[in-house]
Amino acid sequence: MRIKDVREDRTKRSTVEIQQAIRFNLFHMLQASARAEDTGVPAKGLTGKAYEGHYFWDTEIYLLPFLTYTSPRIARNLLIFRYNMLPQARARAKQLGHRGAMFPWRTINGEEASAYYAAGTAQYHINADIMYALRKYVQATGDESFLRDCGAEMLVETARLWLDLGFYSETKGGKFCINGVTGPDEYSAVVNNNAYTNLMARENLRYAAQTVKSLQSAEPGAYNALAHKTALEPSEVERWIRAAENMYVPHDEDRQIVLQDESFLDREPWEFKNTPPEHYPLLLFYHPLNVYRKRVIKQADVVLAMFLLGDMFSPEAKKRNFYFYDPLTTGDSSLSSCVEAIIAAQVGDFEKAIRYGMAALLMDLADVGGNVKDGCHIASMGGTWMTLTYGFGGMQDHGGTLSFWPRRAPEENAILRFPVTYRGQRLEVEIGLDKVEYALCEGESLLIRHETEELHLTRKNPVAVRPVSRR
Amino acid sequence: MRIKDVREDRTKRSTVEIQQAIRFNLFHMLQASARAEDTGVPAKGLTGKAYEGHYFWDTEIYLLPFLTYTSPRIARNLLIFRYNMLPQARARAKQLGHRGAMFPWRTINGEEASAYYAAGTAQYHINADIMYALRKYVQATGDESFLRDCGAEMLVETARLWLDLGFYSETKGGKFCINGVTGPDEYSAVVNNNAYTNLMARENLRYAAQTVKSLQSAEPGAYNALAHKTALEPSEVERWIRAAENMYVPHDEDRQIVLQDESFLDREPWEFKNTPPEHYPLLLFYHPLNVYRKRVIKQADVVLAMFLLGDMFSPEAKKRNFYFYDPLTTGDSSLSSCVEAIIAAQVGDFEKAIRYGMAALLMDLADVGGNVKDGCHIASMGGTWMTLTYGFGGMQDHGGTLSFWPRRAPEENAILRFPVTYRGQRLEVEIGLDKVEYALCEGESLLIRHETEELHLTRKNPVAVRPVSRR
Repeated sequence: MRIKDVREDRTKRSTVEIQQAIRFNLFHMLQASARAEDTGVPAKGLTGKAYEGHYFWDTEIYLLPFLTYTSPRIARNLLIFRYNMLPQARARAKQLGHRGAMFPWRTINGEEASAYYAAGTAQYHINADIMYALRKYVQATGDESFLRDCGAEMLVETARLWLDLGFYSETKGGKFCINGVTGPDEYSAVVNNNAYTNLMARENLRYAAQTVKSLQSAEPGAYNALAHKTALEPSEVERWIRAAENMYVPHDEDRQIVLQDESFLDREPWEFKNTPPEHYPLLLFYHPLNVYRKRVIKQADVVLAMFLLGDMFSPEAKKRNFYFYDPLTTGDSSLSSCVEAIIAAQVGDFEKAIRYGMAALLMDLADVGGNVKDGCHIASMGGTWMTLTYGFGGMQDHGGTLSFWPRRAPEENAILRFPVTYRGQRLEVEIGLDKVEYALCEGESLLIRHETEELHLTRKNPVAVRPVSRR
Repeated sequence: MRIKDVREDRTKRSTVEIQQAIRFNLFHMLQASARAEDTGVPAKGLTGKAYEGHYFWDTEIYLLPFLTYTSPRIARNLLIFRYNMLPQARARAKQLGHRGAMFPWRTINGEEASAYYAAGTAQYHINADIMYALRKYVQATGDESFLRDCGAEMLVETARLWLDLGFYSETKGGKFCINGVTGPDEYSAVVNNNAYTNLMARENLRYAAQTVKSLQSAEPGAYNALAHKTALEPSEVERWIRAAENMYVPHDEDRQIVLQDESFLDREPWEFKNTPPEHYPLLLFYHPLNVYRKRVIKQADVVLAMFLLGDMFSPEAKKRNFYFYDPLTTGDSSLSSCVEAIIAAQVGDFEKAIRYGMAALLMDLADVGGNVKDGCHIASMGGTWMTLTYGFGGMQDHGGTLSFWPRRAPEENAILRFPVTYRGQRLEVEIGLDKVEYALCEGESLLIRHETEELHLTRKNPVAVRPVSRR
């Protein structure tokens, strides 16, 4: 991944620094994950002791995209690591009184290691996060055998958990509701119908149903083995589909936005103007009860859903939601800046995209959070890669086709170049000042999309150049 | 307090046992409180080590009524004990980011000793509970000097806390809302607009405003001292009144009931039919998150509000609410049975009143909770006295006049006799099979109410006998 000046006299130093920072980030991600074979990737990688080396959703949501598109073998290792903790996840679900499997919010050996449920084990979304990463990995690699041999079993057990956790609520017109969970935003704890959780759970349920159904028709032997192993009843799949189709997603009619959770607007506004800068992060200065009852956000939540499930939101909806939630978001978590940067870039707000992107990029080098002594922020490092590819690069990977709607480099007068591995082939994307070049460097044939146009790159015609519309 | 058979041949043994049990309860309350001079009354009195000798709201809501009407000097001691912890309560409010004072949910020396907020320090209602007990004590004793010298200061600081904690919510039509608190029912934690809390906070705000205003007009010197000591601004009182008048109380239109909290009906119904008897109390067998997201109640909450603030609920409303909440209430707390018994008696459901009343009465002697080895349940003991006086005796003490709408003794063919100390005078109430006798045993003159009739008892005409209408 490279960023390079075009007019050398003006911004060279800055661009060199950015290139260095990118490499610093890439290095630590590779170092943390290269030999993650029977382990996960700790929140601090191999750089510090904070979080006691524990694994969180950081791996699947923030790091795996980078690995999936650059080192899929390692992405697979990390998913196998999750698969191997399925027995503990089943035991944990049982302990919580649920069917299926509940992956740990934080763990070292597969067992839940959170000391605190409110901003910990109540984050049921971890299940859907892992299944989301599984789907992206399978889509990007075509590794159907992994899906059959490991993924399907995880999908069955996580879908079961969602079905058991939620219920059809009379007070919500019979919609499928999920109460008493914490979403990504840890400044709102144990809420009803967190939109992120419900949307991601819907994906989880759908992907589980789809996977089981294709297995049933395409590989009856594998299906029978799966059904035997998980004691799957045929009616279960239909119940997953019904729950997914009836999933409740809280929404505000007046503002035309998705609500972070159904009570989000019922909270008292946080008094940002009376909060001195030295009182951030709020979690160190205010009692959690005080924070939980206020309308204030630690980290991207609806905004994260708009990134991960980008094809479900129109550009206008993204704008409305982003400009509603962004001013309420403290960014007190290092997991926030990169996501804000991506959506800012997607809605064309490059001032914000650059500011947030720089915060993510320099999280450790500039000690943005003031805690780099405890170790590097691997999630933010992965988020930096995502900011450049998904954000400025305009990459999208919804629905099984890699597509691009490139914006610009994060520096004026710079070009941005990055490789993407897709189904065993290697694509190089170079976004210049006014054109973008797609080059198939390894592989026979790759169909991608540039803006609204399909591009078919082949060994004979490996390169396509298009103007950047800078929407 | 006596209960005595009338037809000796039939139920003698049972009534003798009940009389013994009542005395056992009275003894332990007196033993626990008689020398509570610089201390509170521990949840287990002087009988066991459970709860580490800590003091809770049990004192004010469950024990103080008994003391206020039988040993007002001891009631006063216990209120002075609270007054003396005002400095720590102020410090605690500050620690939580609030103005005013926040009394500890559990304490030994005035500092908050809860390890857990969800079913602990989030129970802000403790403030209103103490102020409620203060009001009842002042009304029953006429001890205005205590109100002036100690009570008023506590009222100012607790009213301040409510005003700071709540806010006028746009989504609730500009009503004053209190979010993120736990009510008495510990199976619903950290909710928005718990009705009990809001109703009791309203009383707290009103009583604070009323006390400060009367002091201002009647005792300007004392008012000035109070205003100086608490830095009271004149506008504050108006703000308390406005908050009280605009207090939001969640309500269900269809069922015509008060809602325990605004999301109560959004919860998934608990599957009582699939819960084996040995899985109670639920808190020992189910994960709290699982319990919190379900429609299931540990202990009387709206039902407790209907008892404490009985004059705000019509008999029909009491019935509707009781029959809605009673089936959802596990009674997993020993604080529940007595309150259910009182309201059951008030709505004329004597079968339930006797069943719940017996559970409260025999909590320790019959080891109803299975944990008497850890000590006696002082709150349930106080609740037993309340069941007999407020429940079966139909006593009411709203609005400054002692009144009675007697029902019956908890045993067929028995009479129930109990003394009440009111403003230094002693009344004996004897509820027979078809008549009730009120006798002024000490004092000059006492105005009471029997059903809808006013009775003026004097030294010359100390006795009034009336038929019991058994409504």
